Amino acid sequence: MKGVVMHSPGDVRVEEREDPKIIEPTDAIIRLAATCICGSDLWPYRGAEPAEHLLMGHEYVGVVEEVGSEVKTVKPGDFVVGSFVISDNTCEICQAGFQSKCVHAEFVHGTIGTQAEKARIPHADGTLVPTPGQPDPELIPSLLAVSDVLGTGWFAAVAADVGPGKTVAVVGDGAVGLMGVLAAKQLGAKRIIAMSRHPERQELARFYGATDIVEERGDEGVERIKELTNGLGAHSVIEAVGTQESMMQATHAARPGGHIGFVGVSHGVTIDGLELFFSEVHLLGGPAPVRRFLPELIQLVLDRKIDPGKVFDLTLPLEEAAEGYKAMDERRATKVLLTL
Amino acid sequence: MKGVVMHSPGDVRVEEREDPKIIEPTDAIIRLAATCICGSDLWPYRGAEPAEHLLMGHEYVGVVEEVGSEVKTVKPGDFVVGSFVISDNTCEICQAGFQSKCVHAEFVHGTIGTQAEKARIPHADGTLVPTPGQPDPELIPSLLAVSDVLGTGWFAAVAADVGPGKTVAVVGDGAVGLMGVLAAKQLGAKRIIAMSRHPERQELARFYGATDIVEERGDEGVERIKELTNGLGAHSVIEAVGTQESMMQATHAARPGGHIGFVGVSHGVTIDGLELFFSEVHLLGGPAPVRRFLPELIQLVLDRKIDPGKVFDLTLPLEEAAEGYKAMDERRATKVLLTL
Repeated sequence: MKGVVMHSPGDVRVEEREDPKIIEPTDAIIRLAATCICGSDLWPYRGAEPAEHLLMGHEYVGVVEEVGSEVKTVKPGDFVVGSFVISDNTCEICQAGFQSKCVHAEFVHGTIGTQAEKARIPHADGTLVPTPGQPDPELIPSLLAVSDVLGTGWFAAVAADVGPGKTVAVVGDGAVGLMGVLAAKQLGAKRIIAMSRHPERQELARFYGATDIVEERGDEGVERIKELTNGLGAHSVIEAVGTQESMMQATHAARPGGHIGFVGVSHGVTIDGLELFFSEVHLLGGPAPVRRFLPELIQLVLDRKIDPGKVFDLTLPLEEAAEGYKAMDERRATKVLLTL
Repeated sequence: MKGVVMHSPGDVRVEEREDPKIIEPTDAIIRLAATCICGSDLWPYRGAEPAEHLLMGHEYVGVVEEVGSEVKTVKPGDFVVGSFVISDNTCEICQAGFQSKCVHAEFVHGTIGTQAEKARIPHADGTLVPTPGQPDPELIPSLLAVSDVLGTGWFAAVAADVGPGKTVAVVGDGAVGLMGVLAAKQLGAKRIIAMSRHPERQELARFYGATDIVEERGDEGVERIKELTNGLGAHSVIEAVGTQESMMQATHAARPGGHIGFVGVSHGVTIDGLELFFSEVHLLGGPAPVRRFLPELIQLVLDRKIDPGKVFDLTLPLEEAAEGYKAMDERRATKVLLTL
């Protein structure tokens, strides 16, 4: 089968790889219906993370081809959506809603790699959620988005305690930030401030529910958010970048007692303990436990109540994955969908 | 009147100071019934914070002597308990329960100074809570504890999401840590692990509700907590020290999805963003919004359901404050009560 391999930073190739096989009785083999490139794939692409023969891709939807003898909740022919982290969904950590830190957690990125025709999904019962019947093909991009980018934006909003009547600031106008806007809207936020200086992304942010756009960054951006919130700061802040600047922007934009949900994978971030102490903000972040939200988000897509698939602004065949990486790296595309 | 002044690190004197007067119509003047020395007073005492003519003391109970023209909820003769941070208790931040970050917040430490015979309390309506009638004198130490050390330990437990059935780890066996144990017990924790290597403090921790004692520190201490929690870590961790070591111990002792309430004033602490990201723990800390908890905690004391006053293991007259500081600095005393 064909699959994407990153040999070194910037060197992405579509290669012939061995077909995946059932190894554990809890495995399933799926045939991908679509896959995509994640903003986090750019970290190794740009050399900010090790990149040595990585099997790329961790977002996926597809049809089950084969299951191991112990798999009970999905069967061949089922259309499934999975999380970018493998989970058993039964351990204490999973039951508390933190499936991304399951005692059997395993990242799909790097070793499984779903930018491919097929993939072996361990702990299929705990990781995959089947849709009722085969979905309308036009919903596939949105179902694919659920797998990570929406699930991550949603987790950020939940971690930031977004709810009715709240003012939410979103730091980062990438795909995850935009999904954070969508989530904030769905969760009832009264005011959603998107921080963005890109006209197309501002437009998409408004489409997803942003009520205000702040173009300024750093201290100036924080100042603007304070002006919009009686000098207090936002109740909830979604951080969807992962740099020192974005993390500080998020911390300073939150009011005392407010909540920050941070989902940008931290790169070179250090937080000063005393500053955090006197900020007195709630902080929660990490790899999103997408599995917690899959049933609810799949249903919202099937009911056509949300349209997260609109975040894909470039579609290419899997064979042209390298061009997809390039387009995202050069910010010509927000998020690239790969067809099979 | 007499009051404690710290002229420089280690130089604590009881001096004649001018009697406080009503300045704002929202002020009250109180005559202290008792006051005490806080673990945080040791930071400037040890030179870890600036110490130049600081009016010391921020914990207090006493009788109202005089009120400004706009004060409505307390009157001369009332016995009152106050928070170590002044608050109006009406702004949006206060109403959300974060009175320590009130838009009118002001620290009692340094400029007001309640290690004295009298004190001017600004925003008296928002800061002070009267007891019903004059309390039994034997309850005064416990009411005094409510003012900060219990209020802070309680906030740490609430911030750490302590609740029925949970396992709680407490980092720090100082007075605040011990009050964290008391709070965890009251809030229904099933298992309370106190980290302490001091026999007397272990005993007090057990008195307040600790079910397990861990003497090891650092990685070894974390290892012991993991052993006691099926390898997962505690649901809730109270951090009551404020050093890099204690903060890391707290972070590592919490399970993924767990909660850390940190109330030790951070000194030289830096948190690595990536580590926090992959720990996936909830973090909340800062100066405790004691005002939120005052009515409830005062009632628990008056009903003799809790005995936080037992944390005072040395009582001295105000005049001997310097000896009190010395005893705490040398760890001969956990917490010193000063009588008037």
